[in-house]
Amino acid sequence: MSNNIYDIISEISKRRGFFWSSFEIYGGIAGYVTYGDYGVKLKRNIEALWREYFIRKQGFFEIDDPITNPSKVFEASGHLANFKEYATICNQCGRGFRADHLIEEKIAKEHVEALGGEAIKQLLIENKIKCPVCGGELKEPTLVLTMFQTQIGATGNDIGYMRPEAAQGMFMNFKRCFQANRERIPFAICQQGRVMRNEISPRRGVHRTREFDIMELELFFDPLNPSCPWLKDVENEKIRLLTEDMVEKEVDDPIEITVKEAIDRKILLTEWQGYFMGVSKKFLCALGVSDDKQRFRAHLPNERSHYSSQTFDQEVFTKSWGWIEVSGHANRTDYDLNSHMKASGVDMTVIRPDKTRFIPHVIEPSFGLGRLVYVVMEFAFIQKQANNAKRNIFKFPRDLAPYHISIQPLVSKDGLPEIALHIYNQLLDAGYRAVYDEGGSIGRRYARQDEIGTPLAITIDYDTKEKGIATIRDRDTWMQVSISIKELEEKLKLYYKGAEISELGPIFQSNEEQ
Amino acid sequence: MSNNIYDIISEISKRRGFFWSSFEIYGGIAGYVTYGDYGVKLKRNIEALWREYFIRKQGFFEIDDPITNPSKVFEASGHLANFKEYATICNQCGRGFRADHLIEEKIAKEHVEALGGEAIKQLLIENKIKCPVCGGELKEPTLVLTMFQTQIGATGNDIGYMRPEAAQGMFMNFKRCFQANRERIPFAICQQGRVMRNEISPRRGVHRTREFDIMELELFFDPLNPSCPWLKDVENEKIRLLTEDMVEKEVDDPIEITVKEAIDRKILLTEWQGYFMGVSKKFLCALGVSDDKQRFRAHLPNERSHYSSQTFDQEVFTKSWGWIEVSGHANRTDYDLNSHMKASGVDMTVIRPDKTRFIPHVIEPSFGLGRLVYVVMEFAFIQKQANNAKRNIFKFPRDLAPYHISIQPLVSKDGLPEIALHIYNQLLDAGYRAVYDEGGSIGRRYARQDEIGTPLAITIDYDTKEKGIATIRDRDTWMQVSISIKELEEKLKLYYKGAEISELGPIFQSNEEQ
Repeated sequence: MSNNIYDIISEISKRRGFFWSSFEIYGGIAGYVTYGDYGVKLKRNIEALWREYFIRKQGFFEIDDPITNPSKVFEASGHLANFKEYATICNQCGRGFRADHLIEEKIAKEHVEALGGEAIKQLLIENKIKCPVCGGELKEPTLVLTMFQTQIGATGNDIGYMRPEAAQGMFMNFKRCFQANRERIPFAICQQGRVMRNEISPRRGVHRTREFDIMELELFFDPLNPSCPWLKDVENEKIRLLTEDMVEKEVDDPIEITVKEAIDRKILLTEWQGYFMGVSKKFLCALGVSDDKQRFRAHLPNERSHYSSQTFDQEVFTKSWGWIEVSGHANRTDYDLNSHMKASGVDMTVIRPDKTRFIPHVIEPSFGLGRLVYVVMEFAFIQKQANNAKRNIFKFPRDLAPYHISIQPLVSKDGLPEIALHIYNQLLDAGYRAVYDEGGSIGRRYARQDEIGTPLAITIDYDTKEKGIATIRDRDTWMQVSISIKELEEKLKLYYKGAEISELGPIFQSNEEQ
Repeated sequence: MSNNIYDIISEISKRRGFFWSSFEIYGGIAGYVTYGDYGVKLKRNIEALWREYFIRKQGFFEIDDPITNPSKVFEASGHLANFKEYATICNQCGRGFRADHLIEEKIAKEHVEALGGEAIKQLLIENKIKCPVCGGELKEPTLVLTMFQTQIGATGNDIGYMRPEAAQGMFMNFKRCFQANRERIPFAICQQGRVMRNEISPRRGVHRTREFDIMELELFFDPLNPSCPWLKDVENEKIRLLTEDMVEKEVDDPIEITVKEAIDRKILLTEWQGYFMGVSKKFLCALGVSDDKQRFRAHLPNERSHYSSQTFDQEVFTKSWGWIEVSGHANRTDYDLNSHMKASGVDMTVIRPDKTRFIPHVIEPSFGLGRLVYVVMEFAFIQKQANNAKRNIFKFPRDLAPYHISIQPLVSKDGLPEIALHIYNQLLDAGYRAVYDEGGSIGRRYARQDEIGTPLAITIDYDTKEKGIATIRDRDTWMQVSISIKELEEKLKLYYKGAEISELGPIFQSNEEQ
């Protein structure tokens, strides 16, 4: 087994069923990932937490818009002209690659894309870069549209594209949502759903895929009244920042300041930008990523998307790949509403109390769900020694774990399975994600639950049958305590509010024999 | 306003934010629907209920596979050869139509598709059918592939298609999931996600769309051991059936028998088919559709998909369109696993205790989520007279409603909004889908909540401030009762377990003045 953490996690993921490469039986296609049962549950739990942090209490709107869009949408949005990358094709084997990525790999430089086409062509030649697969000569790079194209309808005349972001749906439907919100502003429209990007040469497994779920929010506000009513909730939150200036000078050590300071010092152009960056930091902490492994990196002007006046990437330091982007925080100004207004002729302005009209400005925090799944897994992952064997454990935050609790009869006889199944069904009815686990020794079953990150395991033995007492074992300490079955639900409630295992009952065994 | 229920529901949906036609600002494109905030919540609640009925207690696996698939997947599955419809194009205006649908509209016959190509061509000529838009001559119908095609990658050589069903992902990943399930069979793989069908001429708003979410389950079993361990849960459930024989004879009045009888009489070929049809009937009841508005209609042999040996459509009688399909129940035999085994060379067989090998057989219940949203809305919808005005009410099953409860201060002064917001936040913390509603008269606010189907509204008035007492008003009876704020959460728990409003506290007002 490899010592590289990505390889270890990938191996467990495949074997247990978190995620693996799609179309495996046909040899696989780069850029596509299939999530198994544990991966789907983890995704859904992360998504639910996103709603908690960003939508539910704020009362924001959620919509669900088609993935396929007619071409005029992306003409208006600028994607048809701008959503492109420099691709170079090998003369010999015909494979395509992203020119900037080949350069980055060769000269250990980052963000080569931002240098522009001429520099990319030059660097490719200067560094004598060849096809990384067959060593053949590479063609001169050309700009390639990285949206998937299709035809809508029977006659094939209507060109459509798969959306590369969920945002345009929210801009196109702004007026309808604004009316449903009784014309009050500021407010936000959010969308969780699939997006597709026809990446030229996807790498790194789950890191850069051609299809992924996005969790996107567009906050609409009046540029003359840019204050955020919830700023106080996060204003003292410390964030680590690489400003444009620092990025320009290739400074790698971020400054650490509060959200409020960053706004006051005009590092962040609006309160809303600060609010969502503060919330995003807390969100990542809740996903298990400590402060010191997070930072916000400013985009340089030539690196920003065509619609943005200021962008920060929220980055997380992974052992697998170093710093990777998990969310983008773009100030999209009135670019998109304005573009759709021009292209469609539909009025997108909003009226102020003084009767003046304006096009709302937009702050967008946007998360890729697939990357978050991987980040949560990597940050939760540890290996622990047990009887000369390495044990894999995912210490997921309790509420994020695919299962809350496993229920296991000590032996498959004497009525113990029946009692265990009864408790299993009772916990399912109470809303817990419970799993019934009957096969193998108790030690093997504990190991299995550790490897899928189940926080608690309850073992049903003869004491349960005779005295109504069972043992609960905790993933993180391997400590076991005795509890009365009658109090089980109450104890679980305590535990899922944050209690330690030792608070649930008398210690039965302080560390297990495997 | 129209008197057609579909038009009324569509108008409310658009205005309030359940659903509307996508790309409105660009004139719209047939076959695409956007869900607003209430629609998204309704969808998510229906989806959660599907998991309760079909997955969670059974311990089935859920996966999440890409929408885009390389062409070899659909070559193997037979979709490239078979997922086609007869299209006819107008010589004059160039519009495309489904030939069978044009015939059905003209001669009031159903399921014309099943008659086959020659009959369709003949019927089109015999009935002198012209273009329904411009009256032009129609071309001879041709078979058209109704999958969306695209190109994967930079070089454009890899043809891909958007999946028209989620099923193939579950077949391709069968072996990996089977291993994760520790090689135990029977078991099921499920998938909820987007599918796309390039419908030739989509009609009827949400009824036939080009993109929709599907909820699909593939149950794998040994054909020599086809018994279902949960059959007893539903065996006495009565289902209304139109058998193949009855459909053949155009009998329209279903027989009503229990699931067990239908299996014993070999109307259903397997216990699993019966189990899922029984569960599906209960599921639809929980969505608000009464027994007598449901039936299962058998497909005739020439109407079945290429992979099926027996199919029943679960149909619901809607006021808008008559009987419509909400789920399909197909016996896919070993067709798909066999096809992928042949095409990929990967072994899909499973070993029995006696060492013989077999390819599992498959029963598939498959729901379209968009149609369920509409069905739930139509079945919940009533109009009621209040002070000479018609009031629209969605009597959603309590747990399905977009919001559980609205919180409204009587007036926007004297500290009432602060108390209301405090209670609002408390209910959000307790996990309720709560909405704070401050604008307009109390009567208007009640009307608004009725129109989005919120079961309860709590009004915060001077009694709340002085005595801690508020009134709760119920959507279905318009009855109002007084309750102590201290007991609010406890009372809500009772209500959401099924208590009537009158059980929550003393009647304050038995019917409201609007």
